[in-house]
Amino acid sequence: MTRRIWSNAKLSPVEGERFAEQLAPHELVAAARFEDAEIAVGQPEVESCLASKRLAWVHLTSAGWDRFDQPRVQRAFVERGVALTTSAAVYSEPCAQHVVGFMLAEARQLPRSLRRQLTERGWAHREVRAASTLLGPQTTVVLVGFGKIAARIAALLAPFGARVIGVRRAPSGAEPVPTVAMAELPRLLPEADHVVDILPGGPHTQHVFDATLFGLLKPGAVFYNIGRGSTVEQGALLSALESGRLRAAYLDVTEPEPLPPEHPLWRAPNCTITPHAAGGHVDESARLVAHLLQNLTRFAAGNALLDRVI
Amino acid sequence: MTRRIWSNAKLSPVEGERFAEQLAPHELVAAARFEDAEIAVGQPEVESCLASKRLAWVHLTSAGWDRFDQPRVQRAFVERGVALTTSAAVYSEPCAQHVVGFMLAEARQLPRSLRRQLTERGWAHREVRAASTLLGPQTTVVLVGFGKIAARIAALLAPFGARVIGVRRAPSGAEPVPTVAMAELPRLLPEADHVVDILPGGPHTQHVFDATLFGLLKPGAVFYNIGRGSTVEQGALLSALESGRLRAAYLDVTEPEPLPPEHPLWRAPNCTITPHAAGGHVDESARLVAHLLQNLTRFAAGNALLDRVI
Repeated sequence: MTRRIWSNAKLSPVEGERFAEQLAPHELVAAARFEDAEIAVGQPEVESCLASKRLAWVHLTSAGWDRFDQPRVQRAFVERGVALTTSAAVYSEPCAQHVVGFMLAEARQLPRSLRRQLTERGWAHREVRAASTLLGPQTTVVLVGFGKIAARIAALLAPFGARVIGVRRAPSGAEPVPTVAMAELPRLLPEADHVVDILPGGPHTQHVFDATLFGLLKPGAVFYNIGRGSTVEQGALLSALESGRLRAAYLDVTEPEPLPPEHPLWRAPNCTITPHAAGGHVDESARLVAHLLQNLTRFAAGNALLDRVI
Repeated sequence: MTRRIWSNAKLSPVEGERFAEQLAPHELVAAARFEDAEIAVGQPEVESCLASKRLAWVHLTSAGWDRFDQPRVQRAFVERGVALTTSAAVYSEPCAQHVVGFMLAEARQLPRSLRRQLTERGWAHREVRAASTLLGPQTTVVLVGFGKIAARIAALLAPFGARVIGVRRAPSGAEPVPTVAMAELPRLLPEADHVVDILPGGPHTQHVFDATLFGLLKPGAVFYNIGRGSTVEQGALLSALESGRLRAAYLDVTEPEPLPPEHPLWRAPNCTITPHAAGGHVDESARLVAHLLQNLTRFAAGNALLDRVI
């Protein structure tokens, strides 16, 4: 049976063509004919999805689904039997590698060495060695927002032997590491060496990391954010860096994005910023298409969809 | 039985004291009385060791033992029953974490983002995402010089699923990954994405990585050196970086050290340098002392020594 698919997925030209070829016997509808589509791929407007009468499945080309994570949207999708899937499987690997890369960069003091390489080119042998650390059994890592990315971070950290604790809205008990509810975060922070923010955006996570939470951190802790910039009260983060309470921060997301060149976070002590690149990788389009085609086959066969969130 | 110990180990004041206290019933001899010692700890002179009549055991506070790795020294030690041990167990963890940190920094393009942060503070979102890569089953990592450090790198890389191949002077067959002899290195290089030089110094490894070997690399490969600067013909490395054949280099060791501020490697394209810090960590002295005391207990009891190389 031929399904009509609407897509605004941003793909490389090669992968865009490959997608268009490989979705046969299904067919693409014109960008302006959203209401004809049974399947919407990419980043469709929430209101268009709610208004459509034919829509049966929305597949997002992102790991996050913040815009759809609202009670009225969830209710409408459930009532009308519309499925919502994400591309979490595509992004969990690069995001997890980005976080572990951040953690090892801090442990091995790479930003410090690189700053020196770009300035006086001195050989700070003793200083860098003495400031270097190990990720190991003595290290407590708290992953805030426990989904696929956090599970993958925990897997990548396993051979290091670090103590990993998850925090999420509703722990299922099936997480691969001990995981507690958000309300317990304040209790955990004083024992955390590394706090990784993987929270989605939206009103319920707005400024979760504020002066109170940063004040609970163990002096010398390191903060990482690959979730959303909106989850952090950036003034409080700046103060924690400037006072030295935070040893360092590694941010892939900020508020706003792009972060303006004059923003003080760019120059805050021991703050390293990457431009919302944690999910990026050279074969991103190919992996997005492969994941989407896998789900399309499942949808056509009436099988359970991958990365289904509603 | 009281053993007389000579030591020039460089330890933090706290750990130096702890060592002196905890070695009872054994005792330290004066620095000038090497010939009285049965045990030498730290970095004793090779010739002093060969000249001593009482010496039974030399314990080095380094992972490397280049200075002792000569046929005439090995013969003399074997003939006289003198044991040589290293502190490999202390350094394999930080060195392996340093290498995996380098690899993830490259995969996630951290030096590129940090350079931008220190200059124009632009938000190179698309560029960084497109240049980012993953360590995964499609990645071939060749570890040249397969000892404890390489084994630990292989263990840390296991959850990434990368294909890891070892190269060493004399493969034992007991290595945790497929490992071949040095003569096979040229055959392996064209398929390697990441080449990690962990070779010791000395005449037999002098300039192993020369223009011929760099010429065999797959275009876009990345080269890492945490072994010895002397193992690389640095002019050939510079050319490989300047021509773009090498995507990047990460060096913890150079020739000479410190690398002079005017040396072209500091400014070579995509070359990241740390100041011989791969083995460093904040509790290095404590771990050196713990390892040494463990070996001292074994020595006194006549048990097999840890990290024994002769």
